[in-house]
Amino acid sequence: MTSSAPQSTPVLETARRAREAAAVLAPLPRTARDAALLAIADALVERTGAIVAANAEDVAAAREAGTAESVVDRLTLTPERIAAIAADVRQVVALPDPVGEVVRGSTLPNGLDLRQVRVPLGVIGIIYEARPNVTVDAAALCLKSGNAVLLRGSASAYASNSALVDVLRDAVQSAGLPADAVQLVPGRSRESVGELMRARGLVDVLIPRGGASLIRTVVEESTVPVIETGTGNCHVYVDEAADLDMAVDILVNSKAQRPSVCNAAETVLVHAGIAEKFLPRALEALTQAGVIVHGDAAWQQAGPGLVAPATDEDWATEYLSYDIAAAVVPDLEAAVAHIRRWTSGHTEAIVTTSQAAARRFTQLVDSTTVAVNASTRFTDGGQFGFGAEIGISTQKLHARGPMGLPELTSTKYIVTGDGHTR
Amino acid sequence: MTSSAPQSTPVLETARRAREAAAVLAPLPRTARDAALLAIADALVERTGAIVAANAEDVAAAREAGTAESVVDRLTLTPERIAAIAADVRQVVALPDPVGEVVRGSTLPNGLDLRQVRVPLGVIGIIYEARPNVTVDAAALCLKSGNAVLLRGSASAYASNSALVDVLRDAVQSAGLPADAVQLVPGRSRESVGELMRARGLVDVLIPRGGASLIRTVVEESTVPVIETGTGNCHVYVDEAADLDMAVDILVNSKAQRPSVCNAAETVLVHAGIAEKFLPRALEALTQAGVIVHGDAAWQQAGPGLVAPATDEDWATEYLSYDIAAAVVPDLEAAVAHIRRWTSGHTEAIVTTSQAAARRFTQLVDSTTVAVNASTRFTDGGQFGFGAEIGISTQKLHARGPMGLPELTSTKYIVTGDGHTR
Repeated sequence: MTSSAPQSTPVLETARRAREAAAVLAPLPRTARDAALLAIADALVERTGAIVAANAEDVAAAREAGTAESVVDRLTLTPERIAAIAADVRQVVALPDPVGEVVRGSTLPNGLDLRQVRVPLGVIGIIYEARPNVTVDAAALCLKSGNAVLLRGSASAYASNSALVDVLRDAVQSAGLPADAVQLVPGRSRESVGELMRARGLVDVLIPRGGASLIRTVVEESTVPVIETGTGNCHVYVDEAADLDMAVDILVNSKAQRPSVCNAAETVLVHAGIAEKFLPRALEALTQAGVIVHGDAAWQQAGPGLVAPATDEDWATEYLSYDIAAAVVPDLEAAVAHIRRWTSGHTEAIVTTSQAAARRFTQLVDSTTVAVNASTRFTDGGQFGFGAEIGISTQKLHARGPMGLPELTSTKYIVTGDGHTR
Repeated sequence: MTSSAPQSTPVLETARRAREAAAVLAPLPRTARDAALLAIADALVERTGAIVAANAEDVAAAREAGTAESVVDRLTLTPERIAAIAADVRQVVALPDPVGEVVRGSTLPNGLDLRQVRVPLGVIGIIYEARPNVTVDAAALCLKSGNAVLLRGSASAYASNSALVDVLRDAVQSAGLPADAVQLVPGRSRESVGELMRARGLVDVLIPRGGASLIRTVVEESTVPVIETGTGNCHVYVDEAADLDMAVDILVNSKAQRPSVCNAAETVLVHAGIAEKFLPRALEALTQAGVIVHGDAAWQQAGPGLVAPATDEDWATEYLSYDIAAAVVPDLEAAVAHIRRWTSGHTEAIVTTSQAAARRFTQLVDSTTVAVNASTRFTDGGQFGFGAEIGISTQKLHARGPMGLPELTSTKYIVTGDGHTR
């Protein structure tokens, strides 16, 4: 590419090496990429000792800094966890190869053969927080799809990530691939993220995975194309024609089965025509599950003393906790209007026995996933049968919803003729 | 969306109205969208007088400003040209509807039905130069694919574009769709482009169409996702095993059939093993076609006095004129290396009788289109059989190569169960 070359820095040098590695990776057959992944899985198990030792540094530093024990737990690597990570890599090996898939093909009227085939994106930058297992997951998915990867984990996992990337690079090289196909972005400072975001022409896409503020920063400041992931202000709408038992089950599951993840529900909207029957049952079930309801006037009336008053902030909040915002709406259209105003565009569910209502809700709601009589918790690459997930895109360009291996590719057209001219 | 609302300006108000119109458009069936397009085609013909009168203002101002006659010609609308534009709109009506297409579908192991369906992107902003026919083309393709469109043409075509958009809006409204589905971005100043580029959350994608500097500005400054289009530094590589007659035909056609467009060739690379035979023939044919060759030492030697010396600037230049850069390379890999260094990633052609060379070139070249024994001029939505083209994406994300109607859509997942929970 002829874009003006930015000045050299350690981060940009890393990106340049990734670009060169990507050119080597792109034409490699599946067998070569799979061999590298198997070498990674073996090496992770063999070198568990070194990884655990490096991780212990991060864990000790986190404890010293007074980090919450739940975060320390997510940071911690044990031999069992490393074995599980290695097993995940072996599962990626077994997935279908996205590279080379013919997406579209035809013979044009003039006899030219046209094929559109999947090719790797090139260099993928992943910016992520805390969990060091993402280091291996992301590298495995990028390698499987023929891409070079630049990993920028959190400073608090730097020792763990360095040790893991050493293992990955050695394994990749032992399988005959360029070690620079997997690189840790050097430096623990915020500036290194900034340089990555401006490495347009060297990095093909950035995928931020983590909290809303990280994602917002990358989306707003990056000149490299970004895939926005993961913020989930998800809604459950209980229609007038809902089966109430089903609605209670779906609501509680959507909210409380695992509240800390992006596909957990954050707001329940109930049709006015069914509110009198449903609200007491919902309140009982939610309370039993340990959920605090932040409700509008109708909800407060239904559960005096049980329901905290909701404000606009509640409609906008991704709690990621045992809290839920709750409102009664006059009809389906009002539910859709509420969702359109407040959603992050991740997942919205409707519970209804009415085919017309299901159809209308599905047409009007503009989010990555619309669930009909199913929990919001199903929006997930594993649940969707993709076998792997690099994140859940909440943008409309390139990829939307759970992203598997095909979403880590681009395409190119191949036109074959016998001397065709115009 | 919950992104912090930017302050109100005329441009942002336009974008907000587009967003509302997009919500109305998205669930409409094809018949409603097609009816609006047919109304547009009729109205363009009926109101030709008003359009031509407005266009005359732009043309007079352009002449007064000393604009080149070729640019004035592209700006000019005549009754015949308007009739042709209307006919193009009718052709868009006949194209398959991308909206609602099921891209992927399966029943998951737990019985959930999963479908991924195409949906409109929402609000599309098109930033373009000079030619007022783009106003109608772009609006027609956006409407056909269920999107609202914000049109930002060049200041020099403002009167023409205003008249055209008036006609489009009236026609859209007469067909029962919201007039705000088609809007001209108010103001002729550069600032209005800047506001559009920062309208993240209101505008879903910006597509700049025009010169390299316009595209670069939008790509670098926009916080709205951008699809980069159209810069074409295309190469023809003549392999050692090329059929020389075919190579001459393809080279001359790629360069000279229409030099002003992005899929015209700008550089020819010739394998050293065939240079002695090929260079004289190529020089003769190119010279006959009025092409000036900017060559390396080997080309200069082959055509003393005929060949201007090439510098790095020539390898980097998209001439868009009867000029071509020319080099001799030791082998196919060197040709690929040259292309990788200098290409804009649009289209590269190889001429060869060798299956191995064709395969290798196709694997190694990373551009939107690789042509084997065919002119670079085929990279075009019309030629590819898409029936329409909104531009040629030279980026890897979302769309790559000629973009037709499917590229103006996103997707959403619909998950249907019977009360499924995790």
